[in-house]
Amino acid sequence: MIDLYTFATPNGRKISIALEELELPYSVRVVDIGKGEQFAPEFLRISPNNRIPAIVDQRTGVTLMESGAILVYLADTYAPWLWGSDRWVTLQWLMWQMGGLGPMLGQVHHFVKYNPGKAPYAEARYLDEAHRLYGVLERRLAEADYLGGTYSLADIAVWPWVSRFEYQTIDLRAYPAVCRWYGNIAERAAVQRGYDVPALGLAIPSPASD
Amino acid sequence: MIDLYTFATPNGRKISIALEELELPYSVRVVDIGKGEQFAPEFLRISPNNRIPAIVDQRTGVTLMESGAILVYLADTYAPWLWGSDRWVTLQWLMWQMGGLGPMLGQVHHFVKYNPGKAPYAEARYLDEAHRLYGVLERRLAEADYLGGTYSLADIAVWPWVSRFEYQTIDLRAYPAVCRWYGNIAERAAVQRGYDVPALGLAIPSPASD
Repeated sequence: MIDLYTFATPNGRKISIALEELELPYSVRVVDIGKGEQFAPEFLRISPNNRIPAIVDQRTGVTLMESGAILVYLADTYAPWLWGSDRWVTLQWLMWQMGGLGPMLGQVHHFVKYNPGKAPYAEARYLDEAHRLYGVLERRLAEADYLGGTYSLADIAVWPWVSRFEYQTIDLRAYPAVCRWYGNIAERAAVQRGYDVPALGLAIPSPASD
Repeated sequence: MIDLYTFATPNGRKISIALEELELPYSVRVVDIGKGEQFAPEFLRISPNNRIPAIVDQRTGVTLMESGAILVYLADTYAPWLWGSDRWVTLQWLMWQMGGLGPMLGQVHHFVKYNPGKAPYAEARYLDEAHRLYGVLERRLAEADYLGGTYSLADIAVWPWVSRFEYQTIDLRAYPAVCRWYGNIAERAAVQRGYDVPALGLAIPSPASD
């Protein structure tokens, strides 16, 4: 059994989607970041950075924070197929998500969605970077069906961030390869189950209704 | 022989320091980001995100971008000791650097060092986050000599970002465990060699002269 400390965010969904894909039994521990529950001392012992997601794997005794680390741990421990058709290519795109796409789209969410008007210079900066990053993703997905060749942990890392395209004021239809890839992954039953963890009744956003 | 595409930045230095630690032969290909050389079409074929560092390992044929991916590749291919005393703990802190410390300090550099006054709200936001992250680092290094227990790729990933403490207006002496760790790593001959790649005659900043 794996304890998953999570909330309904892109980083949290990476892990619930991966666990659903692997059909591993897990127990959801809700950390409501709206209520500041990530700052509880008990949680700090599990996640030294006070962030979700984190896991405790009761079988191996491993405690881990950082969604990228958890994905690699799950792949190496339980499911090598999560590496797709090329471990290094998949790792490269996972790191691109961890270091670029995730942090920069996170800034778009902060400035454009939640704090419009507070720093117009920053809004423009991060929107420009978002479009650049979607362009990089489009080039890759125009040459390969999935980031790691076949469906892999890199897709599981990137997809939940793309699923917030509405927060990002991104018209996904302007990126046809990304749009195709997004729709294919959205159809996976494991992704549909993992998206709504913790269960809040949230549906996957559809570009067509944008 | 490994071709290293790099410049004098924290992400570039991660790889030159790692290669010096491993005593692997490598050839430096300077990508002058001040001149926009990262946007050259030849470089895009090696680094689909137009960023340094990237490597081409002539022995294995592997081409890789993203500093975090390159560190993992080098450890798994050439030097398992780079994982320190616990692979998962080291991976966790590597991911913390990739997803948090690096991107957020990068924003401090952008707003506080290079563009002061353009977005006071953003300057305050990223300085607050920088101090929070230095606090997380301090807690970890007060309980362990190095991030991964023993010296590891996680230290090699974090240290070059900390070495820009002056850009960040961070007084390292306010974080005594970080300061001790920073000084110990700065004394390593491989770190001193790897810091000044490409060779520009740059010296490692010392907190004492701050």
